[in-house]
Amino acid sequence: MSVFLETVLVEEAITRIKAIAPVPGKELAPLESVSGRVLSEDIRADIDIPGFDRSVVDGYAVKSADTSGAGESVPAMLRLAGKMNMGEKAASHPGPTGTCVYVPTGGELPQGFDAVAMIEYCEPIGDLVLVKRPLANGENIVRRGEDFHAGETVLKTGCRLGPRDIGVLAAVGCNTVPVYRVPRIGILSTGNELVPVTEVPTGSRVRDINSYLCSSYVKELGCEPVLYGIVLDEREAFREALENALAGCNAVLISGGSSKDERDMTASVIQERGEVLVHGIAIAPGKPTIIGKAGGVPVIGLPGHPASAFIVLKVVVRHLLNRMSGDQSAGHVAMKYTALENIPSMKGREEYVRVLVTDHGVVPLFGKSGLLNTLVRSNGLVRVPAGSEGVEEGDLVEVIQW
Amino acid sequence: MSVFLETVLVEEAITRIKAIAPVPGKELAPLESVSGRVLSEDIRADIDIPGFDRSVVDGYAVKSADTSGAGESVPAMLRLAGKMNMGEKAASHPGPTGTCVYVPTGGELPQGFDAVAMIEYCEPIGDLVLVKRPLANGENIVRRGEDFHAGETVLKTGCRLGPRDIGVLAAVGCNTVPVYRVPRIGILSTGNELVPVTEVPTGSRVRDINSYLCSSYVKELGCEPVLYGIVLDEREAFREALENALAGCNAVLISGGSSKDERDMTASVIQERGEVLVHGIAIAPGKPTIIGKAGGVPVIGLPGHPASAFIVLKVVVRHLLNRMSGDQSAGHVAMKYTALENIPSMKGREEYVRVLVTDHGVVPLFGKSGLLNTLVRSNGLVRVPAGSEGVEEGDLVEVIQW
Repeated sequence: MSVFLETVLVEEAITRIKAIAPVPGKELAPLESVSGRVLSEDIRADIDIPGFDRSVVDGYAVKSADTSGAGESVPAMLRLAGKMNMGEKAASHPGPTGTCVYVPTGGELPQGFDAVAMIEYCEPIGDLVLVKRPLANGENIVRRGEDFHAGETVLKTGCRLGPRDIGVLAAVGCNTVPVYRVPRIGILSTGNELVPVTEVPTGSRVRDINSYLCSSYVKELGCEPVLYGIVLDEREAFREALENALAGCNAVLISGGSSKDERDMTASVIQERGEVLVHGIAIAPGKPTIIGKAGGVPVIGLPGHPASAFIVLKVVVRHLLNRMSGDQSAGHVAMKYTALENIPSMKGREEYVRVLVTDHGVVPLFGKSGLLNTLVRSNGLVRVPAGSEGVEEGDLVEVIQW
Repeated sequence: MSVFLETVLVEEAITRIKAIAPVPGKELAPLESVSGRVLSEDIRADIDIPGFDRSVVDGYAVKSADTSGAGESVPAMLRLAGKMNMGEKAASHPGPTGTCVYVPTGGELPQGFDAVAMIEYCEPIGDLVLVKRPLANGENIVRRGEDFHAGETVLKTGCRLGPRDIGVLAAVGCNTVPVYRVPRIGILSTGNELVPVTEVPTGSRVRDINSYLCSSYVKELGCEPVLYGIVLDEREAFREALENALAGCNAVLISGGSSKDERDMTASVIQERGEVLVHGIAIAPGKPTIIGKAGGVPVIGLPGHPASAFIVLKVVVRHLLNRMSGDQSAGHVAMKYTALENIPSMKGREEYVRVLVTDHGVVPLFGKSGLLNTLVRSNGLVRVPAGSEGVEEGDLVEVIQW
């Protein structure tokens, strides 16, 4: 049985990983708890917003016709007929011609008036108010329903809820919010060379970095990491750990197995329980990546080296986690900066180079791909496409910020 | 007693708000819980990383001198003297001239060898291996300590811990992490016009949006929001609510009080208990912002309208929250895009215009400043400096992404 497929291009890997994302479940959650979660239904305004014609300044409600031709030297002279208070109903001020009513910012425009003169351009004298500017009909007013009409869709399914969205949910009275369930992502670290973080590694052993790195990344994307710890590179131990993770999670990330033998074992166990869809991506670093399904659950084999694993998470696995979360937001617009140095690359694979983005442009941080120090010193990645031989100094390059 | 100061420029407001940030406390927290938190001490490597000369490829450890002049047609012929396993100690393979040893990716370079030939360029024949490329000393090897030396600082105080940093903490065995305490930020919404989100507002009442919007923003910046609910615009009620919040929090955000009378009341109560440092910022929207201190605790009065409040949070209050969190990261590099339309502005105040950033450039979303719909439709803000009359089509503008 051969589980070795051809190395696929990054674009193809992304298409395949998106295709295996399970459809997320739905639940209701209280408004105060849903920051960063994803809407599972369209939300409509239950009322007009604002619910009344609202002044956007502190000033005097006027009939705009009364201020026609008004100026510094010939102000319109209006009789002050009253004062609106915040939250007060407007009917109390009928507003005959030649009068005005004080209205605070956010207050309701009294009936019979059509504009509000800012206090900065008015001069109250006893029960008279001099208005020193002409006003247009509707000036300094937001009309009832101008922001949102009752029944209008205000937020769409798949929206990742940030502070602005949370504000809009409050505005439309959505106190219990339909959201997608948070996906549970199992994390296994495989390798006979691994020791727990609490130990000092001897000989050619190394600490288990990937469990923590993957877990932190999974959280950053709004998913729940479930750690299954270190698993030895033995078929039975690995099979058992994988079964455990499959039973409790919506997807499983297996990190490690960086040598060819270990990768083969990982792929063959996945194949046994399901299907290996990708075994090798034309990406550097990150080539030895496995995309598969086992028992209906996506199982991703990440490269053993933390720097490579992180780039694969950021470039490929992100699409799986977002899709599983129900996130349909477009993501940030690509940012382009000038390359301040040449960035050579090999044709035929996408190369992701760690860079330092400065106000002047982008500087590549070279060094062997397996280093952590360039990973933490960099603040982004530049993608050199598979068809290109590299980037030349002065070229505009797209940057993925960390 | 006058509590009215001159309107200050945004830059000045930021300087003053940073100056009142309390110094954060410190605590220790387990590695698996510190994603997104801020380091309170420099972290040093406890060991060399890697702890041994490590192969970055699957291949054969060789003496580079043995491969001198090797090529496709005249390969170097080496005797296979053994196989390194992951995590195995290296001493077992002494490596006389003319031999090689199989090493997996991440495995230790056996003693006596100085390079690793990738399997792609080798052909094993029985117990011989043909190496078809010459290798340089050190090729495909990361030397002991090349990534980090024992004792070297790997992460600095003030670092906001992302997945890469968490990975580095694991690498250096930092299982209990020194972090700053999470600041508790009290949130009060004031206004007689406010009703809870669960109610349908009648007349000119509106729902309390800002409690939720502020709370979500505070969380986004890694702080803990503490909601004190709706407070009526009455001096006594407000004073009592403020005292409660001061007692339980490291800073207090008071949203609302959008009319002049309410702002005056807020400022005067803060003045009574401490000091008003800024009363009015030359920013649009967001002018009626108060920066003060009461009982030693920063107290910020935000504009009542949610859209204005959010812009003040993003442009000014962010600096307070980051400073209180101990966050010393530089933040993202400014992103510049081409303006696709003119953006007019009034001289003398900084104007923040909501924009839609597309792949082609930036489109301003005009409309009255008090609208929520432009806030959620936009994906960023363009700052038009106080000294400028606006932006012209084709100008390069700086964008703050939401």
